[in-house]
Amino acid sequence: MSNERLDNLREQLDDVNLKLLDLINERAKLAQEIGEVKSRSGQKRFDPVRERKMLDLIAENNEGPFETSTLQHLFKQIFKASLELQEDDNQKALLV
Amino acid sequence: MSNERLDNLREQLDDVNLKLLDLINERAKLAQEIGEVKSRSGQKRFDPVRERKMLDLIAENNEGPFETSTLQHLFKQIFKASLELQEDDNQKALLV
Repeated sequence: MSNERLDNLREQLDDVNLKLLDLINERAKLAQEIGEVKSRSGQKRFDPVRERKMLDLIAENNEGPFETSTLQHLFKQIFKASLELQEDDNQKALLV
Repeated sequence: MSNERLDNLREQLDDVNLKLLDLINERAKLAQEIGEVKSRSGQKRFDPVRERKMLDLIAENNEGPFETSTLQHLFKQIFKASLELQEDDNQKALLV
């Protein structure tokens, strides 16, 4: 009985993992677009004020069970990866 | 014009951030439930074989733009945070 329950919970977890995967990649595409717009207007890609605002939005909307500090740490990792992706795009553009 | 486009993209990004927040917390609740079921049947909470399967599922379903290695790194951080959350629950249970 408990194994059946475990299998069912794991199926739900896999489903959430795949939704997270799609959303993280969707986020990356938006960050790439933002990077292109900023690049065309000569703005720097990393904007600490904007990053702070995004982290504040997470704090305001967190209903748990994760602590806000844990979530902000995870989001910072996602922001960092997005920024690195934009830098890769820049490198590729320079090589063309 | 480009500022209007930037504002629009940022609104979309905030929307995706909030969806990610909800999904990460939804995932945490499922991980807590799994932890409880495993705890009741005397199983260890960390299961490297299961973690490998979840990472493989990410690899199989990744359509980019993020590299699979980047996504797996991000998911490992989420797994780690979930495990720490389960350990906190365990501590609390011991203190009751």
